[in-house]
Amino acid sequence: MTETINVVAIAGSLRRASFNRGLVRAALELEVPGLQVDEFDIAGVPLYNGDVEAAGNPPAVTALKTTIKEADGLLVATPEYNRGMPGVLKNALDWASRPPDQALRGKPVALIGATPGGFGTRSAQFQIRQILGNPGCAVLAKPELWVSGASEKFNEAGDLTDDDVRQELGDVLSAFRSWIVSTAQS
Amino acid sequence: MTETINVVAIAGSLRRASFNRGLVRAALELEVPGLQVDEFDIAGVPLYNGDVEAAGNPPAVTALKTTIKEADGLLVATPEYNRGMPGVLKNALDWASRPPDQALRGKPVALIGATPGGFGTRSAQFQIRQILGNPGCAVLAKPELWVSGASEKFNEAGDLTDDDVRQELGDVLSAFRSWIVSTAQS
Amino acid sequence: MTETINVVAIAGSLRRASFNRGLVRAALELEVPGLQVDEFDIAGVPLYNGDVEAAGNPPAVTALKTTIKEADGLLVATPEYNRGMPGVLKNALDWASRPPDQALRGKPVALIGATPGGFGTRSAQFQIRQILGNPGCAVLAKPELWVSGASEKFNEAGDLTDDDVRQELGDVLSAFRSWIVSTAQS
Amino acid sequence: MTETINVVAIAGSLRRASFNRGLVRAALELEVPGLQVDEFDIAGVPLYNGDVEAAGNPPAVTALKTTIKEADGLLVATPEYNRGMPGVLKNALDWASRPPDQALRGKPVALIGATPGGFGTRSAQFQIRQILGNPGCAVLAKPELWVSGASEKFNEAGDLTDDDVRQELGDVLSAFRSWIVSTAQS
Repeated sequence: MTETINVVAIAGSLRRASFNRGLVRAALELEVPGLQVDEFDIAGVPLYNGDVEAAGNPPAVTALKTTIKEADGLLVATPEYNRGMPGVLKNALDWASRPPDQALRGKPVALIGATPGGFGTRSAQFQIRQILGNPGCAVLAKPELWVSGASEKFNEAGDLTDDDVRQELGDVLSAFRSWIVSTAQS
Repeated sequence: MTETINVVAIAGSLRRASFNRGLVRAALELEVPGLQVDEFDIAGVPLYNGDVEAAGNPPAVTALKTTIKEADGLLVATPEYNRGMPGVLKNALDWASRPPDQALRGKPVALIGATPGGFGTRSAQFQIRQILGNPGCAVLAKPELWVSGASEKFNEAGDLTDDDVRQELGDVLSAFRSWIVSTAQS
Repeated sequence: MTETINVVAIAGSLRRASFNRGLVRAALELEVPGLQVDEFDIAGVPLYNGDVEAAGNPPAVTALKTTIKEADGLLVATPEYNRGMPGVLKNALDWASRPPDQALRGKPVALIGATPGGFGTRSAQFQIRQILGNPGCAVLAKPELWVSGASEKFNEAGDLTDDDVRQELGDVLSAFRSWIVSTAQS
Repeated sequence: MTETINVVAIAGSLRRASFNRGLVRAALELEVPGLQVDEFDIAGVPLYNGDVEAAGNPPAVTALKTTIKEADGLLVATPEYNRGMPGVLKNALDWASRPPDQALRGKPVALIGATPGGFGTRSAQFQIRQILGNPGCAVLAKPELWVSGASEKFNEAGDLTDDDVRQELGDVLSAFRSWIVSTAQS
């Protein structure tokens, strides 16, 4: 019997027809044995403010932290804005990293991303790798998924239409499942 | 007669007693000949959302972009969260960089930052330098201001109490003024 | 019976009394159950040149690649020069990453570093993390070892004299051993 | 009368038919009014070793430092190895940055790069921007030159054959000349 590994997926864009939201939806639909992927929508997570936090986390923040904490792994789909991850995504990760319940502490993470341009969100993903070193996340090394030319690979609703990308996404998810299982033993 | 150079300053923290807001206030109070520093509070700038943008910029975004566009230079005071700049700050810069009026395009920028820890917000500032390459900002190279151990150098209200830091801040502002004047000629 | 895990350690400085060579020597002397650490001296590894490589690897390069390939993990002790790792160290890693036998492919790695300054080689280590993503190394997330003020913690011969650092180094080695064992199963 | 600005160009590859050496040769051949570009070959610059430096710089190091110090600006053409600049290039920059005559201090720099792959040496160039912050170089923000698919744009000898790239290179050189003139006044 294969143990079911639970992964929560977040997209770093709030735009309705975002390629990266579409990438998350494609991950939800892929059937990887022993892997369950669910989405968490970060749209409701407010701008981080230490005074607000001191007065008590807003419900969306509590939900974000609880969801990540209970998941076996976190899948992040990121656009690239200005050679880095969106502020919207960093903001959610900033909240998630906060004590007392540091939801990201040691969490296995996999990164994916899609962009209409030519550089596959590499710089954004490299920044995410750097920041996740702080909570000590175990970020999957390979495979990486850098989707360039996204306008040709998603339709206007943001749904993935490219089978090669779908295949690569499946490879990431399978490798991520193995990664979560192995790192859980260290 | 010395031409007056106008700089807008933003702090990357929303917390009332933030060290970096205090650093901005200290910059406002310093008297540097030929330099006028004003603050823009990014608290009202919402999370970036391409759908919202397509429907028309929220007033706080319009104000942010207009203010930066009209200023001769931008001063950024940043905390460091998770080895990078706060999402809150990146979010404001993401909005500011957007067409049609790319407010950051070619803008002279100076970076400062304070943190209670030991690493002076260096990693956050390095990330900001990277992302500001996209809009082609002319980021001041030296001097840099990395304030470590901020709890000893600011009071509980977040006001700067350390004269060495105040002196270094003045050096940054003077060099920034010269930098703005020289780069305006290229 | 505990399986013995073999780790090869390299220091990113060629200076005789280098703090980072001293850090490697301290790692060799620490007794961690089930862990054997050996040093490889990169002093003989020449500057990378694709023409030289095409004509056949120099002996020191062959030795470097073979040693890393046969080891269960790689420990890297780095100084920080100009906000990054030394060219000397990057050069050795460039050779090691090359086909046909990509010695770094998927290799578990742990990073440590010492510097006389105040920033603990963090920026150098962050760069190493980034570059090791290319060969898909499984870089240990935590603990990290950032030794600042090294002049007070090593003697003039470059020998570690600080027991707190020695303790932290032991913690890195123990965690690295567990990390190697767990990732070997993915 | 137009003042002649002198720029020294270095390529970060030692391979005879290197695309980046070809890019430097193309820069030498372009005629930009008021700009003189000369090459410095870093092939003879040995691996950095603090003991060697303490005993007196090798002739190639002295030549490198003198040449950069006397030039009005530095043009760097970089390959990308392992998501960063080559060790060979970082090594030359490490030497050049050293006291007593810190040849890079405040130097205007422009970056260009070519790679057979798809990502234009962006990550290498971003790392160079980061490390040149230490000596306080005034790195040209725009235009940037990221040549992907270099095998189609250079011949087997490494000579540039693509007129679009030649045009873009000319744009970089013209902008660099203006940048050097303006920053010299701050």
